[in-house]
Amino acid sequence: MEIIDGGVTAPKGFQAAGIMAGVKKQDKKDMALVYSEVPAAVAGVFTTNVVKASPVKWDIRLVKEQETAQAVVLNSGIANAVTGKTGDANNEAMAQYIADGLKINKNQVLTASTGVIGMQLPMDVIELGCKKLVSSLSSDRQSGKDAAEAIMTTDTICKEAAVQFSLSGKTVTLGAMTKGSGMIHPNMATMLCTVTTDASISKKMLQKAMNQVVNISFNMISVDRDTSTNDSYMILANGLAKNDTIIEEGPDFDLFCEALKEVSITLSKLMAGDGEGATKLLETKVIHADTEEHAKILAKSVITSNLVKTAVYGSDANWGRIFCAMGYSGVSFDPDKVDLYIESSAGSLKLVENGMATDYSEEKATQILSKEAVTAIADMKDGDAEACAWGCDLTYNYVKINGDYRS
Amino acid sequence: MEIIDGGVTAPKGFQAAGIMAGVKKQDKKDMALVYSEVPAAVAGVFTTNVVKASPVKWDIRLVKEQETAQAVVLNSGIANAVTGKTGDANNEAMAQYIADGLKINKNQVLTASTGVIGMQLPMDVIELGCKKLVSSLSSDRQSGKDAAEAIMTTDTICKEAAVQFSLSGKTVTLGAMTKGSGMIHPNMATMLCTVTTDASISKKMLQKAMNQVVNISFNMISVDRDTSTNDSYMILANGLAKNDTIIEEGPDFDLFCEALKEVSITLSKLMAGDGEGATKLLETKVIHADTEEHAKILAKSVITSNLVKTAVYGSDANWGRIFCAMGYSGVSFDPDKVDLYIESSAGSLKLVENGMATDYSEEKATQILSKEAVTAIADMKDGDAEACAWGCDLTYNYVKINGDYRS
Repeated sequence: MEIIDGGVTAPKGFQAAGIMAGVKKQDKKDMALVYSEVPAAVAGVFTTNVVKASPVKWDIRLVKEQETAQAVVLNSGIANAVTGKTGDANNEAMAQYIADGLKINKNQVLTASTGVIGMQLPMDVIELGCKKLVSSLSSDRQSGKDAAEAIMTTDTICKEAAVQFSLSGKTVTLGAMTKGSGMIHPNMATMLCTVTTDASISKKMLQKAMNQVVNISFNMISVDRDTSTNDSYMILANGLAKNDTIIEEGPDFDLFCEALKEVSITLSKLMAGDGEGATKLLETKVIHADTEEHAKILAKSVITSNLVKTAVYGSDANWGRIFCAMGYSGVSFDPDKVDLYIESSAGSLKLVENGMATDYSEEKATQILSKEAVTAIADMKDGDAEACAWGCDLTYNYVKINGDYRS
Repeated sequence: MEIIDGGVTAPKGFQAAGIMAGVKKQDKKDMALVYSEVPAAVAGVFTTNVVKASPVKWDIRLVKEQETAQAVVLNSGIANAVTGKTGDANNEAMAQYIADGLKINKNQVLTASTGVIGMQLPMDVIELGCKKLVSSLSSDRQSGKDAAEAIMTTDTICKEAAVQFSLSGKTVTLGAMTKGSGMIHPNMATMLCTVTTDASISKKMLQKAMNQVVNISFNMISVDRDTSTNDSYMILANGLAKNDTIIEEGPDFDLFCEALKEVSITLSKLMAGDGEGATKLLETKVIHADTEEHAKILAKSVITSNLVKTAVYGSDANWGRIFCAMGYSGVSFDPDKVDLYIESSAGSLKLVENGMATDYSEEKATQILSKEAVTAIADMKDGDAEACAWGCDLTYNYVKINGDYRS
């Protein structure tokens, strides 16, 4: 598998656009469109939040009822969540505008919104934006980037990934874009992530691949434990790579899952490291746990602890907080067996052996924790299962960004 | 029931002391002792964290095996958690020093520690501290305050409460002290809370009263969703008020529970409002829910959301985050039925009606949210149950305090 430069326009037959429509107050791109030149198998995973945004309700129905989809229209600035029947109607109108422009059925158009909850979309702006999007579509590299930029909210970096691999002698490409920086928490799909691929794969196997991958990528990151109302992880597979269609489990399916996993974990780590206000990516590996489920719960509990996150921000090896966070995770374990390590580009250090502090150097620990990506490893000595979770530090800037997000 | 000025020395037959022993680096009080002149019925609720501090393990055994206890020794600065067998032995020695000084059995001495996890107690300092504590015991008002001060860590205010009420013609007094500012989260007892009373009540009914009260007081607050390794809520009832001993449910038991509830909710709100870095107390009431359990879960989800907490800090009526937090709480409800209000000493405002924004004044909303205590009320219109939870805003200072807690 080869990691390539690119985003949603990397696979054959996909076009994209990202424009300034005027949904956001600032002069920033705020509408995006991803289009497959032919109908594409569609699959999706959406937020588990009871309060679901209008576009999420729309997409869940589409993914359930339709074999294919051909476009995804996305806007940033306003989330179109908790907007009642008006919000549902506005969302459907947005799909209709795109359908009219592309001359396809509105049921082929997935939608996604992100931004402030509770505000209605400005439909005059949306209508003009949809027209501009359709006329701006292109399959070039820059259009993919424009689309990725247009879905950013508090993100500080544009998040794309793409890989190429071979299936039944054909080159298959998988590209993706995502946004997400706050309101990011496990038990969700993710924020808005759109994946495109020219792989030929049945809808059923596409959904199966997504479900597998989401549990070890987007569901293993957290910025602030807040599961959004708008999380959407959508994939379009248009088959233009002409590989033998994947219709069952086997080596081809496994390879496809590997590629999807590569792209999804790359984007997950980009999101966690770009968490609102974050200065560091915090990775937690739990090894030798009794079950994978327990390893996941323990790893997630560590990366979501505000006290661990602030200690990481301060480069303070206050490892007791890691034990504390595992302790209240709901998983039973023997603290007196656990070893704990930290590592980064500055080296590796064993802080705890069999539940008691080693005679480690605080200076060295601070050096390790001062790097931009730090890993905590908990060895439970209780079995063969392991899991990895990604989060970020909690900083002054998280508070600043969220203290007046709407102004 | 009368709220009186006082703490653990308010009831008859209780003495206390709080001293500077030298556990903390700074020149601050760091050891406390509470002593009942006669053996007292004992009950306790302790942390649900799998990683339990040595004093918590000691107390759980004592409360289980002993009918009575006569003293509680507490230290701040070091939590004596994740300290292995050495920690257990040190804790037992601390109980022994106090037992020697008071000439009672060590199994009559409850222990409690709070502070940095993973460090061992300095036993020379503890031994001298215990001697000084015993010689400093007094039943006066100031001694209760000294004890309450000696258990403070990042607390900015000393937390005490006391009430007086009448049982079978006798005046009964209940006093309490607590500490807690960070690592405060529901599903625990609380941080270190010691309650004293001269009520005559059986051990069984005392424990029953505690269990009832903890679920609507200390288990309904959160500062940072981190459940500590050391949480302890202990009560000693020495019977010196000479009321007819409470041995079963009935009016006297109900009155006792009311008094315990009054003291516990007062202290809970003090803890939430004094959360690390907090500038505001955030109260959330969920009314007309289908069950009390659901109301509790919804209310807790709101007060624990970092995004709600930062918005409250910024006095920003970003109510979508309240809906979002209720939405991911795990409770099913119809967002389109919910009304949402905010209120404080600056007035009251309906922000949402039937799941959609009202035409409220942002200026008025900001005024309301700018006060030191703000309440959010969610009307679920789904039944008769209600619950209240207390938290605080998330501020720059929370990050500052916890970025370098150990230095």
